[in-house]
Amino acid sequence: MKWLRWVVIPAAIAALLITSKPVYAQSSDAIVDLTRGLNTVWVLVAAFLVFWMQAGFALVEAGLTRAKNTTNILFKNLIDFIFATLAFWAVGYAFMFGSSAGGWIGASGFLLTGGEDVAGLPLMAFWFFQLVFAGTAATIVSGSMSERTQFKSYLVYSFFITAIIYPISGHWIWGGGWLAALPFGAGFKDFAGSTVVHSVGGWLGLMGALALGPRIGKFTKEGKPRLIPGHSITLAVLGVFILWLGWFGFNPGSQLAADGINADIISLVAVNTNIAAAAGGLVAMIVSWLFITKKPDLSVTLNGVLAGLVAITAPCAFVTPVYSIVIGAVAGVVVVYGAILLEKLKID
Amino acid sequence: MKWLRWVVIPAAIAALLITSKPVYAQSSDAIVDLTRGLNTVWVLVAAFLVFWMQAGFALVEAGLTRAKNTTNILFKNLIDFIFATLAFWAVGYAFMFGSSAGGWIGASGFLLTGGEDVAGLPLMAFWFFQLVFAGTAATIVSGSMSERTQFKSYLVYSFFITAIIYPISGHWIWGGGWLAALPFGAGFKDFAGSTVVHSVGGWLGLMGALALGPRIGKFTKEGKPRLIPGHSITLAVLGVFILWLGWFGFNPGSQLAADGINADIISLVAVNTNIAAAAGGLVAMIVSWLFITKKPDLSVTLNGVLAGLVAITAPCAFVTPVYSIVIGAVAGVVVVYGAILLEKLKID
Amino acid sequence: MKWLRWVVIPAAIAALLITSKPVYAQSSDAIVDLTRGLNTVWVLVAAFLVFWMQAGFALVEAGLTRAKNTTNILFKNLIDFIFATLAFWAVGYAFMFGSSAGGWIGASGFLLTGGEDVAGLPLMAFWFFQLVFAGTAATIVSGSMSERTQFKSYLVYSFFITAIIYPISGHWIWGGGWLAALPFGAGFKDFAGSTVVHSVGGWLGLMGALALGPRIGKFTKEGKPRLIPGHSITLAVLGVFILWLGWFGFNPGSQLAADGINADIISLVAVNTNIAAAAGGLVAMIVSWLFITKKPDLSVTLNGVLAGLVAITAPCAFVTPVYSIVIGAVAGVVVVYGAILLEKLKID
Repeated sequence: MKWLRWVVIPAAIAALLITSKPVYAQSSDAIVDLTRGLNTVWVLVAAFLVFWMQAGFALVEAGLTRAKNTTNILFKNLIDFIFATLAFWAVGYAFMFGSSAGGWIGASGFLLTGGEDVAGLPLMAFWFFQLVFAGTAATIVSGSMSERTQFKSYLVYSFFITAIIYPISGHWIWGGGWLAALPFGAGFKDFAGSTVVHSVGGWLGLMGALALGPRIGKFTKEGKPRLIPGHSITLAVLGVFILWLGWFGFNPGSQLAADGINADIISLVAVNTNIAAAAGGLVAMIVSWLFITKKPDLSVTLNGVLAGLVAITAPCAFVTPVYSIVIGAVAGVVVVYGAILLEKLKID
Repeated sequence: MKWLRWVVIPAAIAALLITSKPVYAQSSDAIVDLTRGLNTVWVLVAAFLVFWMQAGFALVEAGLTRAKNTTNILFKNLIDFIFATLAFWAVGYAFMFGSSAGGWIGASGFLLTGGEDVAGLPLMAFWFFQLVFAGTAATIVSGSMSERTQFKSYLVYSFFITAIIYPISGHWIWGGGWLAALPFGAGFKDFAGSTVVHSVGGWLGLMGALALGPRIGKFTKEGKPRLIPGHSITLAVLGVFILWLGWFGFNPGSQLAADGINADIISLVAVNTNIAAAAGGLVAMIVSWLFITKKPDLSVTLNGVLAGLVAITAPCAFVTPVYSIVIGAVAGVVVVYGAILLEKLKID
Repeated sequence: MKWLRWVVIPAAIAALLITSKPVYAQSSDAIVDLTRGLNTVWVLVAAFLVFWMQAGFALVEAGLTRAKNTTNILFKNLIDFIFATLAFWAVGYAFMFGSSAGGWIGASGFLLTGGEDVAGLPLMAFWFFQLVFAGTAATIVSGSMSERTQFKSYLVYSFFITAIIYPISGHWIWGGGWLAALPFGAGFKDFAGSTVVHSVGGWLGLMGALALGPRIGKFTKEGKPRLIPGHSITLAVLGVFILWLGWFGFNPGSQLAADGINADIISLVAVNTNIAAAAGGLVAMIVSWLFITKKPDLSVTLNGVLAGLVAITAPCAFVTPVYSIVIGAVAGVVVVYGAILLEKLKID
């Protein structure tokens, strides 16, 4: 029965292998599942914070404009996000992230069909995070045109931005389109959407402001600018705190993951975001205090915080905190002199 | 020493099994622990968001009622949650989730004693999530009776709801009571509490409103309804954004887990919740614009958003986004004509 | 070829061990990574909530003081956090958590250099959580001196607190300094910062209030206290809800982890925090109602909630919910009579 050894022992080993194989498979599958769960939680929480920025924009804009326009502005901001949701569901997501037609436009995934993971996340989690970004772009435009647009024409405008303009320009950069594919390393990079969200939003807003002309009453007959004071600094401050909070979803959330090295990156991004906001606010306050208003001005400081937040959005994952201070500080200077430039150019 | 083979080799294999057994045990125990940690984080964050809805209800109600009633309403909302916390600790949780006495009432777990996991979560995490739900039910009633109740009688009322009425009706559906146990598949199902929270809250509110009669000044002597405008649309908008945000805790959090397939479900639920809110707001605005007010109305749009959120709460885990649009849209129509119906019936 | 058995079989077993060894290593490394990711997400989310308390303090203070001081108070609160960020980056963190120079002050880690994990977290995540704590301490002082300080002198004051006073006293307790190292078990313990944050903040505030004298108009010529009513109870209520929410980051976040037993602890801490807040509010309302104001008072109830939150901060991880009720209730009594005492002592 010597031969038995040759059967029994290998069989035992095989059995052991079979027993231990599922161990391997099971624990590594479980880890993959759990990683996906952790990243989904992170992205959803970040998306909730970015959604919350809608309330921040609404309060900042309502607080810094005249009381008579409050309802108009709040209504616009609410409708923005409603349109963004429905337009991004119907066509926006497909235009932005669908399989590319020649690098110019996405052409699949209309009506949120399909169910495969994107970036290691459930499609729905990825879609939701992208949606709140689209909503932010739409809302930035609404702010630029505050106190100057008819509600109906704004509705049309708002729909086109979230259904067409934002998704297509986004496709060029994030969706694998031509800008991202430029040769020789010139491919466009944008971590958390300085260009895709804020710049597209901002340029559209500037065009809107140019087309519309300054707010009625902004300039005297002689062409001198008048100060149009906001009606509630408390709302504006609350709004800025909401935006600051929301940006912790916007920037660190853009990493779309929290496991392994991603834990380091999201922490760094949160710190950079916060530091640039602080530097922007402080420098704007000081520059304005020393050279312009001759006293500390709360509105200017708030604008400095927002400028710091916008400025750090593109490079937040690639720099150390000391550079975030520099970036925030530059933004703080720019926002003070930019407001003066807009007045000099009679834009608003 | 041939026999040695029969000792050494199996011993080696056994040793290997023993060595590898702890591997198995350790990594799978670690995974179980980590899954529990992930799910606890998810449920706590969701609970924080649901808690935050208290602020949303307070602002919506304060914003949409007359300035003279603001303090009264805010006080009620604050006391609601204070009572909910203490009543749910003392008896509510036991009545709702304690071991069932005949399917009618729970009868164990008073004073939050016992420490076993519930639904794979630490008892405290589960309790906290259930508490913020109970607080929401109590607060919905407070809204229905705004501008109509004495503070003292409201205190009594509020205590009974969170200590007795909500927990017992909740026990019937979620705690293993008779409604959930109906035979032939007729057992009552409610994912995130459309019935348990919103319907119980809403019916109690309607009964309260009926018992109390309409607000003083709501109807003229001839019985014609008067518009009672809210005193701050800004607060109402902020409140709706808070509620919208909080609902991302309410609905997706109800899954009570984020690992494996739960990651897909919570993402879907978040998307459905958001889409129904948007559809509800848009449809309410359009219907009212076309057929009732003849102009876009911000308050109506806000109510449409809330109607969409309430309507999607029960089915949010079982439908695709396209159905969420339908559900939200129907809710948007209902809320517009429902308000008219309440006026016609002279309830308020 | 009998010897072959002695080669083949051990070789097979060795191969099996080698095959299974990486299994062990891989899955346990993956688990370590994932645990770190989960804890980082938890700590970042908690830090976001603590950051959000800045908005809460701003609104509570703005709401409970006179309208004319609103801008001043909001500006202070904003600047507090800006200074805290920059001072804690430059020197504060190094003074607090750097390697100790004789137990009195930390002396390494200036400008946020170095990249090693702290407490199992990415340095940046740990720093960010500690920063928002420092910001809270600074802001508490700002509240104590509301309506009484020149903006410029406050700037200097604010900088010293977050750069020097808070970090050094924090070093004594949390950074391994002399208070924590007292022999015979007398070493100072403070879970979530009752002493480090609230007490340091509070004592500084009391000293500031003493140095500054009561608010102009607080006492009549005869020395009788006057009621200085706040200008917006709505803002105050919103602010308290924000603080209550933020405290769910402050206390449970202080555990700095969510895996294994930490899941139980953070859940318990969240529940204790909530219960103490509720008990504090209820008892303050009742005591004041019965013995002082003879009617329910919303401001008193809000102060009771905050007192309950502050009181539970130190022991929140070490007590059961029933003790949290006792702790909150005592705080509710103390806050009512404490306000009277401050008036009697003519501090404010």
